[in-house]
Amino acid sequence: MSSPEICIHVCVTCRAAGAPDDGAERPGAVLHRALAEALSAADAPAVRLEPVQCLSVCKRPCTVAVSGPDRWTYVYGDLDPADAVETILDGVRRYAATADGLVPWRERPEAFRKGVVARIPPFKTSSAA
Amino acid sequence: MSSPEICIHVCVTCRAAGAPDDGAERPGAVLHRALAEALSAADAPAVRLEPVQCLSVCKRPCTVAVSGPDRWTYVYGDLDPADAVETILDGVRRYAATADGLVPWRERPEAFRKGVVARIPPFKTSSAA
Repeated sequence: MSSPEICIHVCVTCRAAGAPDDGAERPGAVLHRALAEALSAADAPAVRLEPVQCLSVCKRPCTVAVSGPDRWTYVYGDLDPADAVETILDGVRRYAATADGLVPWRERPEAFRKGVVARIPPFKTSSAA
Repeated sequence: MSSPEICIHVCVTCRAAGAPDDGAERPGAVLHRALAEALSAADAPAVRLEPVQCLSVCKRPCTVAVSGPDRWTYVYGDLDPADAVETILDGVRRYAATADGLVPWRERPEAFRKGVVARIPPFKTSSAA
């Protein structure tokens, strides 16, 4: 089987707003760990999970980016590590089921509707233009 | 010569905050037109310019996304169509001069430092992993 083509990047660096710099595990690191565990389940969607140091959405942790070849890329913020895993898995299943990554607004998880930070069209190389 | 591999997407839809829906040309459309003109100059960087209906950064027009193969993608907002063209060309020249799209913070145009909305790592396919 080839490697999964859908990717979730999770920022593991940002502190929650107002949180002290006390060395506590960062919310994004907690979310990354929970996602890794959930994605190891037999019925989990095929996704490559990657931690990243910075998605430049520092004021809205937790933050993730969802991307895939020939698909729109989405960046989501304001995700609560305590309950975002199911939202992300649900959203990614719907994303993976499309050809271009565009999930109709009403079908998106609420946290994805409210938390969307940006989206970027698929990158077309000159050979595909 | 092959087509340019660096791409600028410009959202041409959003109104400025508080602007009436009076049918006036949108700020992003003005910016797109000014960029197209500037990019036609002989010394302009090789860039593919594409209008887009929505980058989901609706509260911070004008908004652009800068992307390229094997490079980080950047989304910038709060750009003033009256003076953003030179900033964008300067930023894109620096972006194109890197292998991965990461321009050192101090070398970025100020409007790119202040206006950054998000950045996303380059998408790696399984064959490139």
